[in-house]
Amino acid sequence: MSSPNRKPVPTMSTALKGAQIYFGPFLVTSQVLTSFYTPSPLPKLPHLPRTDRFPPPQVFHLTPLSFALVNLKPILPGHVLVSPRRRVPRVSDLTAAETSDLFATVQRVGRVVERVYGGSSLNIAIQDGPEAGQSVAHVHAHIIPRKRADLDHRGGTDAVYGMLDGEEGDLRRAFAEEKERGTKFPAVDNEARAPRSMEEMEAEAEMLAREMEKEGELR
Amino acid sequence: MSSPNRKPVPTMSTALKGAQIYFGPFLVTSQVLTSFYTPSPLPKLPHLPRTDRFPPPQVFHLTPLSFALVNLKPILPGHVLVSPRRRVPRVSDLTAAETSDLFATVQRVGRVVERVYGGSSLNIAIQDGPEAGQSVAHVHAHIIPRKRADLDHRGGTDAVYGMLDGEEGDLRRAFAEEKERGTKFPAVDNEARAPRSMEEMEAEAEMLAREMEKEGELR
Repeated sequence: MSSPNRKPVPTMSTALKGAQIYFGPFLVTSQVLTSFYTPSPLPKLPHLPRTDRFPPPQVFHLTPLSFALVNLKPILPGHVLVSPRRRVPRVSDLTAAETSDLFATVQRVGRVVERVYGGSSLNIAIQDGPEAGQSVAHVHAHIIPRKRADLDHRGGTDAVYGMLDGEEGDLRRAFAEEKERGTKFPAVDNEARAPRSMEEMEAEAEMLAREMEKEGELR
Repeated sequence: MSSPNRKPVPTMSTALKGAQIYFGPFLVTSQVLTSFYTPSPLPKLPHLPRTDRFPPPQVFHLTPLSFALVNLKPILPGHVLVSPRRRVPRVSDLTAAETSDLFATVQRVGRVVERVYGGSSLNIAIQDGPEAGQSVAHVHAHIIPRKRADLDHRGGTDAVYGMLDGEEGDLRRAFAEEKERGTKFPAVDNEARAPRSMEEMEAEAEMLAREMEKEGELR
């Protein structure tokens, strides 16, 4: 798996064990499970909605200062977010170490989602403050894999940004709905694109966690 | 000006002296002047267009691995670019040191343009590859200061992205026109927004260079 010459890369199975990560006010790791790979040790509690026991483990990668999470309503397949672990609203609030770690993570995660989702380019965008369209006051870089003509039906390459800033990209609303409704997501949105189920997000997070480990071993 | 405890920050007057910086195929520092602050030592050569002697010095900040330049056609006031000095097309091509230096520079330049242009937020965007809208194959982060309601006349906050990816944000075309025509820019474009004169860009670059030095001293 790893040679003694390789610098160990924090992986899901070790780094995420027991971690509680907040994206803004929203918990995006499990409160109960200690890792994605540990089967639940809890008895079944059918009177509780599933979210109360297992908040969706959206985080798929963790470094000393940053984390990456899958999206409730990705604009395109593989659209993920990278955030600093410290909950600060602006890029200028980040320390030098946090800035460096955040963008090293953006680079590594970008490489993986581009490969996994068969992209040939990436949009990387930070809405740094409310006047720039930021809806959750916690620094986050959007990473969106792109391929040729992938948004022709929506008006072309630049349609991604309108989607990012429009209702589809409203993370605060999406996360609030998720928190409030548990698994009962609204069936439709204005773009006729339903938010994903927690099972789907969890499966994607597990898959991307494995791919991140692979990337760590490859380099 | 500076205390002995402060780490010296590379400034325009020292770091840019004699530097020749390319943004993609386009020279964005002067071929002739050794710094922005040195009056031209050349005799007047009225038979040459001014661009042949003084390509527009658009670069206003230089670090060991990155540079920042003003825009020919800023989408909003203070819209600038930050690039690695090594001409590579993709973020994944950057070394760890280049990635760290680039985003430390994005953070510092963002802080300065937000302050100087009276913004309260920033859009930070990288079109990482042609399918993401990249028009010059040299990694560049757009930094755009934002204020409340600054694009209401264009359709709201998210209009910035359409502008970034549309004709207004076509850096290759803008730079090619600049190179080809010298000071004779087309009088209008589709957005009825004329490219700026070299004098205007140079004045902005000088002003921002001084502000970057000030920022270095402040921190």
